[in-house]
Amino acid sequence: MAEVKLFGCWYSRFSWRVEMALKLKGVEYEFIDEDLSNKSPLLLKYNPIHKKVPVLLHNGKPIAESSVIIEYIDETWEGPSILPQDPYERAMARFWVKFIDEKCGVAMWKAFSSPGEEGEKAIEEAAQLLKYLEEEIKGKKFFGGENIGLVDISANFIGYWFGIIQKIVGLELLTKEKYPNLCEWIDGYINHSFIKDNLPPKDKMTEAFKAYARPGY
Amino acid sequence: MAEVKLFGCWYSRFSWRVEMALKLKGVEYEFIDEDLSNKSPLLLKYNPIHKKVPVLLHNGKPIAESSVIIEYIDETWEGPSILPQDPYERAMARFWVKFIDEKCGVAMWKAFSSPGEEGEKAIEEAAQLLKYLEEEIKGKKFFGGENIGLVDISANFIGYWFGIIQKIVGLELLTKEKYPNLCEWIDGYINHSFIKDNLPPKDKMTEAFKAYARPGY
Repeated sequence: MAEVKLFGCWYSRFSWRVEMALKLKGVEYEFIDEDLSNKSPLLLKYNPIHKKVPVLLHNGKPIAESSVIIEYIDETWEGPSILPQDPYERAMARFWVKFIDEKCGVAMWKAFSSPGEEGEKAIEEAAQLLKYLEEEIKGKKFFGGENIGLVDISANFIGYWFGIIQKIVGLELLTKEKYPNLCEWIDGYINHSFIKDNLPPKDKMTEAFKAYARPGY
Repeated sequence: MAEVKLFGCWYSRFSWRVEMALKLKGVEYEFIDEDLSNKSPLLLKYNPIHKKVPVLLHNGKPIAESSVIIEYIDETWEGPSILPQDPYERAMARFWVKFIDEKCGVAMWKAFSSPGEEGEKAIEEAAQLLKYLEEEIKGKKFFGGENIGLVDISANFIGYWFGIIQKIVGLELLTKEKYPNLCEWIDGYINHSFIKDNLPPKDKMTEAFKAYARPGY
């Protein structure tokens, strides 16, 4: 049995984050690509509460929830730090990840996938929430400063996923005109060698996400 | 200016958690009790995104989100550890806090406050979700083992708040018959000297929460 197994899905943004954390640390792992419409008995065994990817299995012990897994990886393996060293900077990084997961990412996903009024409301909400990130990234190369860090890894939905899926539904939410700083970050992000070499292909992503698009787009 | 200020609210479960973390570490702080219906300009300045308590101000630098603040406190001050030392145990503690915040606590709050069908659905959901905690606490004194830890502090809504507010609406969701292990934990929790000495008074809590109860209870 491999020491480290990751139950994930190639197009899941949460699963991808964990892969990036493992790669950043140089941890070898076995990737189990789950079919989300027919999840494996092992995934359900290891994450009985949420029944979701990603699940990291380390020495037979399972951990669920991408943000929890990433902190575990950072604390367990040597290598470049994923979280900042300074406690205040660490707190700020955790704050932004929560903001992306619980607010911004939720609204952006609904903007893409929810029909009717709910979708329209989400578009407006996402537009507002993105302004906070536009302000936060101003004058910085990455959210982590000079190097890719926790927030950059966790902002993958904004950095890559959303650019692809907004095109599927013809949405022009995240654009250079509206968010010049964020789009400059996106440009540096997808062209950063570490990120670039690990992004799922655009065409395949477009196909995979069509099924989740709002009806009647 | 005091070195540590906490913008909170005496009956907020999130604010209380941070107070417990500060007290556990023996940190002196100034408590600013916010009127949630008329928040102070300082609170809005320090937490412009969520506009919520708690906000910790340490040496003039603000931190929002109770779970983020508690990790900051644990990393910044000496004293008893709030999170476990072992990385896997830390991951499990973080997992349960997320579960309490994002799932269990949300459903329990709706069970208490949402009218009609939404409330009924939440009661069923909360009943299911509480089973996971009932299983997790089985055979343990506290979620943190022999001592109060992160999960115990963060489960205050289940340990104290909910017992009071379910009475307001005549709900019998969290009972000894249905959740014997959880109720045994609750008993040990509210009688633990550190917790007991810091719980807001029941009568005052009942009055404060009546305004949030589901209409027509």
